[in-house]
Amino acid sequence: MTEVTVKRLSAADADFDATLDRLLAWEDSVDHQVNESVRHILQAVRTRGDAALLEFTSKFDQVDAASVAELEISAERLQQALDKIPADQREALEKAAERIRSYHERQNAGSWQYEEDDGTVLGQKVTALDRAGLYVPGGKAAYPSSVLMNAIPAKVAGVGEVVMVVPTPGGTVNELVLAAACIAGVDRVFTLGGAQAVAALAYGTETVPPVDKIVGPGNIFVATAKREVFGTVGIDMIAGPSEILVICDGQTDPDWIAMDLFSQAEHDEQAQSILVSPDGDFLDKVETSIRKLLPTLERAEIIAKSVSDRAALIQVEDLAEAAKVSNRIAPEHLELSVADPEALLPSIRHAGAIFMGRYTAEALGDYCAGPNHVLPTSGTARFSSPLGVYDFQKRSSIIGFSAEGADRMGRVASVLARGEGLTAHARSAEYRVKS
Amino acid sequence: MTEVTVKRLSAADADFDATLDRLLAWEDSVDHQVNESVRHILQAVRTRGDAALLEFTSKFDQVDAASVAELEISAERLQQALDKIPADQREALEKAAERIRSYHERQNAGSWQYEEDDGTVLGQKVTALDRAGLYVPGGKAAYPSSVLMNAIPAKVAGVGEVVMVVPTPGGTVNELVLAAACIAGVDRVFTLGGAQAVAALAYGTETVPPVDKIVGPGNIFVATAKREVFGTVGIDMIAGPSEILVICDGQTDPDWIAMDLFSQAEHDEQAQSILVSPDGDFLDKVETSIRKLLPTLERAEIIAKSVSDRAALIQVEDLAEAAKVSNRIAPEHLELSVADPEALLPSIRHAGAIFMGRYTAEALGDYCAGPNHVLPTSGTARFSSPLGVYDFQKRSSIIGFSAEGADRMGRVASVLARGEGLTAHARSAEYRVKS
Repeated sequence: MTEVTVKRLSAADADFDATLDRLLAWEDSVDHQVNESVRHILQAVRTRGDAALLEFTSKFDQVDAASVAELEISAERLQQALDKIPADQREALEKAAERIRSYHERQNAGSWQYEEDDGTVLGQKVTALDRAGLYVPGGKAAYPSSVLMNAIPAKVAGVGEVVMVVPTPGGTVNELVLAAACIAGVDRVFTLGGAQAVAALAYGTETVPPVDKIVGPGNIFVATAKREVFGTVGIDMIAGPSEILVICDGQTDPDWIAMDLFSQAEHDEQAQSILVSPDGDFLDKVETSIRKLLPTLERAEIIAKSVSDRAALIQVEDLAEAAKVSNRIAPEHLELSVADPEALLPSIRHAGAIFMGRYTAEALGDYCAGPNHVLPTSGTARFSSPLGVYDFQKRSSIIGFSAEGADRMGRVASVLARGEGLTAHARSAEYRVKS
Repeated sequence: MTEVTVKRLSAADADFDATLDRLLAWEDSVDHQVNESVRHILQAVRTRGDAALLEFTSKFDQVDAASVAELEISAERLQQALDKIPADQREALEKAAERIRSYHERQNAGSWQYEEDDGTVLGQKVTALDRAGLYVPGGKAAYPSSVLMNAIPAKVAGVGEVVMVVPTPGGTVNELVLAAACIAGVDRVFTLGGAQAVAALAYGTETVPPVDKIVGPGNIFVATAKREVFGTVGIDMIAGPSEILVICDGQTDPDWIAMDLFSQAEHDEQAQSILVSPDGDFLDKVETSIRKLLPTLERAEIIAKSVSDRAALIQVEDLAEAAKVSNRIAPEHLELSVADPEALLPSIRHAGAIFMGRYTAEALGDYCAGPNHVLPTSGTARFSSPLGVYDFQKRSSIIGFSAEGADRMGRVASVLARGEGLTAHARSAEYRVKS
C-alpha cells in the first residue's frame, strides 16, 4: 500500500500566505560541479568540433562512431519509423500534428508598414529564424508529443531548417520519436545528447550546422548548457517542475479531478498539483478519490511522493477568491472545472494555459488540443508565454524618412541629442535638415 | 591631433571570413568579483529589504536617507521638472513621445479564439504584465530618450504600474530624465541604482513593490544583477556594445556617412561602425571625411578609439554581396543608404532596425522616428527583436472542449499518453470519453 498525505489549507487562515509560499518553493540549487563539467564540454566542442562530439558521445551514451556523419539519421530512416509504428499510434500522432499545426498557424504574425503624410514610412518586418535546434531527451523521458510541440511551431513560422538532436544511450532508438520527427517535418536529426549536443547546435561543428535558437526540454546538464550558450543563440525558457491548479465549484466528479491532479503528479516527484474549491465537502471527496485511485496507478510511487510533498487542497470563500489564489500562483496549467468558465475567465490574469469546463482535461492539452504544451512554469506565467510561432520569428523595425520628414524630425532629434551631449548624433541628423 | 586608423577589408580576400570574425569579437569576460559582489547585494536586499537598500544607497551613491519613502520622487516633482526644462526640449520630448506611442500602438496584440464544429473553443488570451520595472542609469549616461523608449511600450501594453529606478549619485538629479518620466506616464520613481535597485524591483521591499519584469540599460553591476534575478522576474536582453552597419551605393555625401558612423562610435570605445560599399573610391572619400570631421567632434577621443579598434570599411562586389555580409553580421542598426532601398530590403534577413534611404540617419531612430531604440546587439538580431509592446504582454492558451470534442480527442490523447507510459494522463482523458 502506497502511503500518501494530502495537505489541506484554507485561504482564511492567518498564515495562509506564508504557508502557500513554502508550498510553492522548490529546490533549484546551482550545482557547481555540473557547471564546471558543462563549461568543459562546451569549450571542448567549440574548439575541437566533431572530434570532441565523438568522444563525449562514446563516454556518456556508449555509442561509438567513426564520424559524426554516422550519427545522422536519414530522412528515409525517419519515414521507416513512421511506417512501422502501430497504426493507431500513427493516426493519433498525425491527428495531433494536424491540430497543433492548425492552431499555430493563427499565431503567424505578418509584416506591416504605414506611410505618413510627408511620405515617411514606418513598419515592422517579420522574418523567421534561419535555423532552429530542437533538443529531445532520450531514454524514458523521450516524448514524441514534445517533438510535435517544439518542431511544428518552428516549421509554421517558416524556419529554414529544423535540426533535432536526441541521445540514444546504448544505441536505443525511440521509434515514436523518429516517427514524430518525420510527421513534424524535422529537416535533420543527429543522435547526440547532453551538453555536447547543445554545444554542437550553438557553435556548429564540421558536421552539425550552427543554429540560431535552441528549444526543448532536457536534464540538468542540458539546461545548464542552454543557459551558458544563451546570447550566442536564443533559448526557450528553462523549465521548472510541471504544475497544475484546478479551480472546481464542487460539481465535477471527484474521481475526474483526482485523476487530473495525478496526471500532473506522475511527471516527477517535484511536480505540483493544487485544487482550489469553495466546497469543503468536495475537497473531502477528492481526498477520498485520491486514496482510492492512487493504488491503481502504474506510477503510484512517484505520484504519492509528489502529492505528499507538493500538493494541496485549498478551501476558499468563493470562486472570486479562487481566482485570486490562482493569480498569485500564476500556474502553468489552470483548469476551470466550473459550470460557467467564461464568467470566471476575465478574472484570470496569469496562467500558461487555461482549460475551460469539466470536459477539458489538462491531458488533452498535453497531446492534441492544438495549443502548445511547452508552458511557463514556477510563476513565470506572470511575464512569459507558451512556446509559439512568435518564438521562431523576429522583428526588424523599418524606418524610411522622406526628405521632408528628415527635415522635420532632424530638428527634433538634434535638440534631444544635444540635450544628451551626443553631438555626432545631432550633426548626423542636422545634415538632413534643410538649411 | 587625434590619431585614428581606419581598417579596409575586401569581401574578395581569402581570409575575409576570419578577419571579419576577429573584428566582430568583443571582450565580454565574466568578472568573478562583480558576480560575488552582486550576489551579496541581492541577498542582502532580499532578506533585509529597505534597511539594506538604505545602506547600499548611502555607500554607493552617497545619498543618506532616513527611509526609502524619502527616496521616492512624487508625481508633483516630475511635473515640476517638466515645467522647468527649456521649452524646445520639452517640445522635442513631447513630439518624440507622441511618435513612439503612435508606432507602438500598432504592436498591440489582441486576444483571439475560434470555435470548431463540435463546439470546442481554442484561443489565445493576451494580458499585460501587472507591474514593470524600468532601470535608468544616472550620471553622464542618463538618457531621457531611454525613459521614453522603455516606459511608453509598457504603458501602451496596458501594464498596471510602471516603476522607475534611477540613481542620483551625490544627490544629482537629471531634470530631463524626470521630465521624460512625467511625459511617459511612469507611475512611481525611486532614486535607487545599481544591483540594489534591481534587487528591490525583483523581490520587493517594505516600500518598493516587486515587479514582474525589469527592463532598461545599466552598467556591469546592473546587467549582472538582471541576469541573476532572471526567472524570478522577466528581463529584457543584456545588451552588448552598440553597432551600425551602413550599406552605401557610393552616391550619398561621404560626410553624411562619416557622421552616421561617428554617431555610433561616440557611444563608447567598444561601439562598432562598419561601412559596406561596392565603390572603392567612395570608401576612400569616406575615409577622408572621417579624418576631416573627427577633430571637430566633442567626443573625438572616444570616437577615435572606437573607429581605430572596431570600425571597418568593407568593399564588396555588389549590393547583393553587401546584403550577405550584413546578414552574417546581423547588425543592431542597418542603414540602406542606396537609391532604391525597397529593392534591397527583401534580401535583408537579420537586423534590429533598418534605415531606408539616404535621408534616414540612424540618429533619427534613436530619438523620434517612433520605433524603439532598444535593439538586439552582437548578432542577436538573428533571433531577437526590438523592445516592444509584446515584451510587456504575455499569452495564455485557451482550451475549451465540448463533451463531443472531449470524447473524440480523449481517444487520441489516450493512445498517445499510453505510448509515452503516462497512464494517469490517459485515464484522465478517458474519463471524458463516452463509453
